[in-house]
Parts: sequence; C-alpha cells; structure tokens
Amino acid sequence: MIQRFDAGEFPYGVFSLRGANSPARVGVAVDDQILDLTSLSADSVFTADSLNPFMAKGADFWRVTRDQVRAAVGRGDGNYLPASSATMRLPVEVADFVDFNSSLQHATNAGLIFRPGADPLRSNWRLMPVGYHGRAGTIVVSGEPITRPCGQFSDDGTVRYAPTKQLDVEAEVGFVIGHGTRPGDRVSTSDFASHVFGVVLVLDWSARDVQSLESVPLGPFLGKSFATTMSAWVLPLDALDTARVPGPVQSPAPAEHLRVERPAGYDLRLEFSVNGSVLSRPAFGSMYWTPAQQLAHLTSNGARLRTGDLFASGTVSDDTEFGSLLELSWNGSRPITLADGSSRTFLGDGDEISLSAVVIGRDGSRRQVGEARGSVSPARC
Amino acid sequence: MIQRFDAGEFPYGVFSLRGANSPARVGVAVDDQILDLTSLSADSVFTADSLNPFMAKGADFWRVTRDQVRAAVGRGDGNYLPASSATMRLPVEVADFVDFNSSLQHATNAGLIFRPGADPLRSNWRLMPVGYHGRAGTIVVSGEPITRPCGQFSDDGTVRYAPTKQLDVEAEVGFVIGHGTRPGDRVSTSDFASHVFGVVLVLDWSARDVQSLESVPLGPFLGKSFATTMSAWVLPLDALDTARVPGPVQSPAPAEHLRVERPAGYDLRLEFSVNGSVLSRPAFGSMYWTPAQQLAHLTSNGARLRTGDLFASGTVSDDTEFGSLLELSWNGSRPITLADGSSRTFLGDGDEISLSAVVIGRDGSRRQVGEARGSVSPARC
Repeated sequence: MIQRFDAGEFPYGVFSLRGANSPARVGVAVDDQILDLTSLSADSVFTADSLNPFMAKGADFWRVTRDQVRAAVGRGDGNYLPASSATMRLPVEVADFVDFNSSLQHATNAGLIFRPGADPLRSNWRLMPVGYHGRAGTIVVSGEPITRPCGQFSDDGTVRYAPTKQLDVEAEVGFVIGHGTRPGDRVSTSDFASHVFGVVLVLDWSARDVQSLESVPLGPFLGKSFATTMSAWVLPLDALDTARVPGPVQSPAPAEHLRVERPAGYDLRLEFSVNGSVLSRPAFGSMYWTPAQQLAHLTSNGARLRTGDLFASGTVSDDTEFGSLLELSWNGSRPITLADGSSRTFLGDGDEISLSAVVIGRDGSRRQVGEARGSVSPARC
Repeated sequence: MIQRFDAGEFPYGVFSLRGANSPARVGVAVDDQILDLTSLSADSVFTADSLNPFMAKGADFWRVTRDQVRAAVGRGDGNYLPASSATMRLPVEVADFVDFNSSLQHATNAGLIFRPGADPLRSNWRLMPVGYHGRAGTIVVSGEPITRPCGQFSDDGTVRYAPTKQLDVEAEVGFVIGHGTRPGDRVSTSDFASHVFGVVLVLDWSARDVQSLESVPLGPFLGKSFATTMSAWVLPLDALDTARVPGPVQSPAPAEHLRVERPAGYDLRLEFSVNGSVLSRPAFGSMYWTPAQQLAHLTSNGARLRTGDLFASGTVSDDTEFGSLLELSWNGSRPITLADGSSRTFLGDGDEISLSAVVIGRDGSRRQVGEARGSVSPARC
C-alpha cells in the first residue's frame, strides 16, 4: 500500500490560484491539499516566484521550516487550498543544469545499439560519472506541453531540416542545490546533504536523430535543448534518508574524492508510462554512480555551485526495466505495444508521458514522490 | 592609428567605486573615464548589479539610451569618474552559455592534432555550427585570477586526479542576448540585431588533459567548467555595423534557415598575448560560421532565448594566426618562445593572458573593443 508523506517529509512547490491574477507563493503538498506557507510565516521567501530564496537560506532554515510545517499540520493550523484550485509553477529558477549518464545498464545499452561489436562502455565510464551541461532556460514544469522540435538529421542518406522522427524521453531523477559554494570549493561525498535541498523527477526529452548527427565531438546540443520537464514538487532530501541503499559494487575502485563512506544510493522505484500504459519500473537504487558522487565530481575542478543548480541522473535503467524508448524499442527495431493495442518505437504527436516514483524505506514503507508529465504537440516548422 | 569610440559606440559596463561600500551602477566608457548613467537617468535599470534589466528593455530603449549618451557626451553633461577609481563587475548575469566551434582553421587543426590520418573535419562540421552548453555560473569578469583546476587525466598510462598539466586558453568573441524569445520561436539570420545587445571578448580556459579523458561521448565538461572570462565592457552591436564582411564561402550551401542575406561576418582583429608577448592576431572575419548563423542554429529547435544568454564563437584561428596554445604549440610539441626568452607549451602558474580587439571599419578606421584578461593561480588540491 502506498502511504502519503509523514509529517516532515512534505514536498515544497510554488503555486498561484487558478484564474485569478494571483501572486506566486510557496506551498506544501498535504494529501490533495496545499498548505499555503504564507499563512504560517511572514518571511518574504515564501512570497516568491520560485523556491530559490527559501533554498538559499541554508539547511538550518530548511529544518526550522520543516518543524513549523510538521507542527502546523499536526494542529491543523494554516490555510489549506484544494490542489485543484492551484496552478503549479516551475518550482526552481534553474541556474546551471547538468545531466549525467550514470546507469550502467543504460550506458551499456546505448553502446550495444550505436557501436555494435565494440566494448559498449567507453574507457572513461567507470572512472567518473560522465556528464554534460544542458540548457537551463528550457526547463519546464510538469504538465507543460512539449512541441516536437525540428532539426537537421540524416534521413535516407540525405541531411535535411525537419520535425524529428525519433522523439524520445528519458526517465531521470534530479537533485536541486539549495546552498551554493564559493569558487574553488569542492563538495565531498559526505557533505552532500548540506548543499542539496531536494529531489525532483525529470523527463529528458531527446530528438535522437538530431542528437546523432550533431554530437561529435562536443556532445548533445539541440537534440536535448528544446525542453526538459521537472516535477512541480520538490521533496526535501531528508525524506529519502530511510531509503538509503548501497550502490552497485564499483570496479575499479573510484578515485579517492569519489568514494563514499555510507550507502549513497536511494531506493526509489520509478514508474514510466505512455498514455497510461506502464512501460517500465526501473530501480533508481541500481544506478552505478550515486548523486553524492556526481556532485563531488561536478565540483572536483572547483566549479562553484549556485542556489538553483540542478543535476540529473541520466536515464534510469536497470537489468530488466529500461527508462527510455531508445532502449525499450531497441532503437526502433522492436515496436512496443501499448494497452490500447497501438504500437510505438519513438513518440507520436499527442502522446502523454508520465513519470512517478515511490520511495521505498528500510521498513518496507512506500511513499509517493510526485510526478513529471508532458504531452507531445505537433511541430511548428 | 587606433581611435577611441565615436559617440554612440560607447561600451556599457557595471561598476562600483573602489574601496567604498558602493552600490553597483551602469556606466559608459569614454576614453579613460566612466560616465555614470545614473547621473543622466533616474531609470532603475541603471542602478543594477548587471546590464540585464537594461538589456531586457529591448532595442528601442537601447537606441534611446545611446542617443542620450551621445548628446550628453557632446555637451559634457553627466558625472564622469576616472576608470582607475572604479571596480568593474561581471557586466552580465549570464543565463545560458553556449560555446561554438566555428573556425574552420581551428577545427582542422584540432582534427590534425588529435586524429592524424583521418579527415580532420567531422562530417557534421560544414552542415551546422557545432556547439555545446557551458557553465554559466563560473563566468568571471576580466581580471579575476583563474585557479589551475584539478581533474582526472591519463598521465604516463595511469589515470590520476591532480592539477592539470595542460592548462590552455582559447581566444573567442561572444554575443550577449538582450531581448529574449518565447518558447518555440526561431530567430532568423536577418533578425539577429533585434535580439543581440552587444559583443564581448571571451577567454575560454581549458584543461586539455581533463577534457581529453572525459569528453566521449558527451563533450567537454570539467575540462572547461572551472572558469570562463568575459570582458568588463559590452560593446553595442551597432558599433560593429561598419565592420561587416562576408564570411568565407560556405560549401556545401547551408540549410535554408542558416543562410544570410547580407555580409554577416565582422572584421575584428584580435590580439592574444601571454605576459605581454603577442602570440597571435587572428582575424574574426575569417570565421566560417557567423554569429547570425550560430543564433539561427541555436534557436532552430525552438529553444527560447533569455536576457543574459551568451554565445561565444569558439577559438578564433585563421590560416596563419592561431587563438589557442593547443594550436600554437601543436599540442605541446613545438614550444613557444616569449619575449623574456622563456618558453611555453601550455600555461604556467603566474602567466597573465590578455585578449584585446580592434574593429576595422569599411573606411579603414580602427577602434578598440576592450579587453579580457586573466592570470593563472596555483592549484588548490
């Protein structure tokens, strides 16, 4: 049975009232209600267009706020609104966005598909969590429609500019930086929780044909930069604490600055659906590189963090459950049959994608983590 | 002879008074003075930490301001400060940062160095301006010291985490977006000037050994993300109008959305120096892909632009003058001798790098474009 959040594990979001010319404010999801934090506190960080001012206050303030919320919910204090009366905003003003590629199974599958006969893993893959910077300005909140992008790709031997024929989406988990660093500072794996505010679900939309032509040698660009979806609710990192699991054994042992002292994986079970048909339920706990290692790597050259930085896991695929259509259809060679009898290789116009997750605690408890959704609109070129 | 700017071609920057707890404000460089724009206008966009509020007002407002500045300078109105009394701030709060790779000679040189025997140009290179997203949060203003980064690289056959041994820097020209777009909009090559506020000089610091190990298949990441330097002064795009030149003939003809109707190159002559020794004077007018084509490509998938977006050219190298130490030393194989008799392959601690440029007008006039400088501090790992 799936439980709602315990007190103290409520997710934060930014909402405005539907219809009215209502200012944005910070709220907490409590069942199907939103607790308006401006009814509990006069602090200006709760009357903001994003969680950034709240997140920038740092971990002590996050804990005080969590305690206030817990007490208020227990006493029934504060102003509650039906979630249906609110429009959810993009919760974070994203500063820099980094996307990793940290699933061993996904990296292996991509290698098998695109470089058959070669070693599917690149020589750097087990040495570091390989990643790249994505476009922060095209991150949208769950529910925003995604327009099929146009781009140049090779089609029947000729290159043309046209709507992508291989629109894919990757199921990912993202982490949001609350407390930044000074230039030159590095974040050790044990210092993860003092910088990370919370966790979101991410849909990494990908035009595979565009990506394929453009990405040598500088990596993905327009094949990814048209849109990335983030869940409306940001779950505080503390809520994952009982779901810690060891990641897979890493061989070779990672460099010293990438080692972890305690389990650094998180037992989240994703559910990835198209038009209501569940495609897969990959386990986030299977990821080879953990979020704490990703952040240690990201800052290992002294690059500073800012409030609002987002880094995402890359496609979550485990041994049997794959988090992208590229893998599920094996690059279009094995059509996927949906519940309505239709089949897919890549996404069609009108398709609705949903990614949800449950946190699985050490006591076997299962708690919902929100949702990232998006539907595909026809191209405009 | 190098002239100062004509009225109306003054660069904008953000300064505060040295020493005092002085608020940031917008100024205009006039010879070795700064005209404080708050002395000409009470508009709050001139009392800001960055040019972003001013840039967001759009091209009509930029023109009105330029006319006010021109009139004030002509009459001697307004409050002038010696530049030596001011500290220059990072002029732009950078939203998304994209770096291209648009010099045919640089791309060819990199291919010859890293893939000898193969076609030096990748198959996509003449089809589109290849680019990638960089880290906006580590862009610093000219003059900020650059700390030698640490990272993982292969050294004598073993991979270790250590201070980079191959610190390089690329001489580039960048363009700053003033007026953004809505999601889904594309910017045609003829609409370039209604979105671009101005031009800056960029130093793209690069740890070549780190970059080499990490960048397959997702492109540069930590080898670049530690720092990028931007000039303190942003020259309005209008100031380049008399310096328009045709770019090189493009073969094959680019896709329709990448074609230009009038000369889209700019005749800037760069000067790239280490410790006062001029290394090269590459011609920006030689770039294969022009800024208008870069912007059309960047938005060809509907990715929106935001005020403060920055895109840079990639290393500016022409047939004989190279804009990176990678090329000048041919990946370390041909040491460069400086004026003091010392030699360099890559950069040493304490080295001071300077990039300046002159705009060469159709009438032969030469005007200074400001400067990007940085010196290398020792590693901290």
